[in-house]
Amino acid sequence: MNDLPDTPEGMLRLMQTRSVEASPFAKFLGIEIVRCWDGEAELVMPVRPDLTQHRGTVHGGVLGSLADNVCGYAIASRTGPVVTAGYTIHLLAPVQGDKVRAVGRVVRAGKRQAVAASDLYVEHGGSTTHVATALATMMLVSS
Amino acid sequence: MNDLPDTPEGMLRLMQTRSVEASPFAKFLGIEIVRCWDGEAELVMPVRPDLTQHRGTVHGGVLGSLADNVCGYAIASRTGPVVTAGYTIHLLAPVQGDKVRAVGRVVRAGKRQAVAASDLYVEHGGSTTHVATALATMMLVSS
Amino acid sequence: MNDLPDTPEGMLRLMQTRSVEASPFAKFLGIEIVRCWDGEAELVMPVRPDLTQHRGTVHGGVLGSLADNVCGYAIASRTGPVVTAGYTIHLLAPVQGDKVRAVGRVVRAGKRQAVAASDLYVEHGGSTTHVATALATMMLVSS
Amino acid sequence: MNDLPDTPEGMLRLMQTRSVEASPFAKFLGIEIVRCWDGEAELVMPVRPDLTQHRGTVHGGVLGSLADNVCGYAIASRTGPVVTAGYTIHLLAPVQGDKVRAVGRVVRAGKRQAVAASDLYVEHGGSTTHVATALATMMLVSS
Repeated sequence: MNDLPDTPEGMLRLMQTRSVEASPFAKFLGIEIVRCWDGEAELVMPVRPDLTQHRGTVHGGVLGSLADNVCGYAIASRTGPVVTAGYTIHLLAPVQGDKVRAVGRVVRAGKRQAVAASDLYVEHGGSTTHVATALATMMLVSS
Repeated sequence: MNDLPDTPEGMLRLMQTRSVEASPFAKFLGIEIVRCWDGEAELVMPVRPDLTQHRGTVHGGVLGSLADNVCGYAIASRTGPVVTAGYTIHLLAPVQGDKVRAVGRVVRAGKRQAVAASDLYVEHGGSTTHVATALATMMLVSS
Repeated sequence: MNDLPDTPEGMLRLMQTRSVEASPFAKFLGIEIVRCWDGEAELVMPVRPDLTQHRGTVHGGVLGSLADNVCGYAIASRTGPVVTAGYTIHLLAPVQGDKVRAVGRVVRAGKRQAVAASDLYVEHGGSTTHVATALATMMLVSS
Repeated sequence: MNDLPDTPEGMLRLMQTRSVEASPFAKFLGIEIVRCWDGEAELVMPVRPDLTQHRGTVHGGVLGSLADNVCGYAIASRTGPVVTAGYTIHLLAPVQGDKVRAVGRVVRAGKRQAVAASDLYVEHGGSTTHVATALATMMLVSS
């Protein structure tokens, strides 16, 4: 049905190469995929000043982008290439920090579309704050 | 109730200064507010390569960011400062283009929160394509 | 592409028969379609006590149901049969009233899925209150 | 801060009495709360013909209502009374069955609003199908 790598290491390399390095905006964000296998994905993004809004916290649009991406990686690890049909994000707490960690998981993957959920955390020193939760729908693409 | 400019020109300057220039990520996106008055806002963003994904169209996360922002400007023009509680975006058509135009309008502004709707269009040469529709909820902040 | 009635009256009858009368829950709600043509639909639902929640206002789940339905009628009037993939509803004001009016319109109808927007109003005596706004995604079905 | 029961049994009785029995539409749906404690809730609803749509599966509006309710019970068990600000539901699989089980959990409860997630399952004979996932935002109310 699809021609995906058959090891977690292979999948991680494929995703980082094809979905991050080949996507200028994902590359700008500085996304590093740290896990992507069997419907689950995790990424980290160091917080830079140009990713914040006027209050010093990570911009809601950046968080939405990370949620969209990590859901896409989670789904693609099971289905092959996808495009986003839409996403919903709830911002839970505006906090400053060093790094955003996003975790995504497939909720259901059908033949034509798939739904994934993701949660985003800001890490600051030793502490972690849950900053957003999101749902995304993706359409499977054949190529 | 709030201390907002009393002319469309004053409002536009305030928003461009406080919400775009003071927000590093909005500034990175290259947002220009072209209208912001009485619960409605409009912005344009020239498409640059670093705002696209691997298929050459504007990244869904960038579109989500624009939707979030234009809803915020629309609401803030009526209520003063807000922070995003969440947003939902539906991506309608993946098209390449020169410019994204986003239009937002208040659906309802209450005492504690407000809801706005927005539509995004990609312009390419003389043609315009409706690429996304979104809803956002914002919390009013006192300062 | 589809075999839809070619007059507004024919479409209205088809929708009321196939989508309301044939759908036990829509029938329970007491939905009456008053307009359904070329991507737009409007329905009214008299408020009954068994459709309210403990505060006396129409239950949010009923409003979500109306939003889902009116989006479906709007889309189906252009594409033929659809099934809901999901919807987002924002509740704007909890008010009591005699009747709910829901208005839906296609935002975009593609070959496989479509997106519609809807707004819900509660009418009470001579006044009307905007009580909810929603977006829905539907999948086109072939039969 | 609030005056909630201090045992799971007391909470369950309070919720079933105040939120289901006192809410005509929740009572019509036939909701039975089976667990409601410390930010988590679970309910079951037997499937009746009048809760289905024309294809014989549970109506999407009923599923949205259950998602809304179970999120509300989960949040209220921690914060006291709430009203829904909005919800997003993704329908995953249209299946027929005997019973819907809905499970909700608080994602974050703040001072003014809270976010919860829920998942819905249809049970049929011995098998269970995940039919929907949802997110809801609620406003805390003082009384």
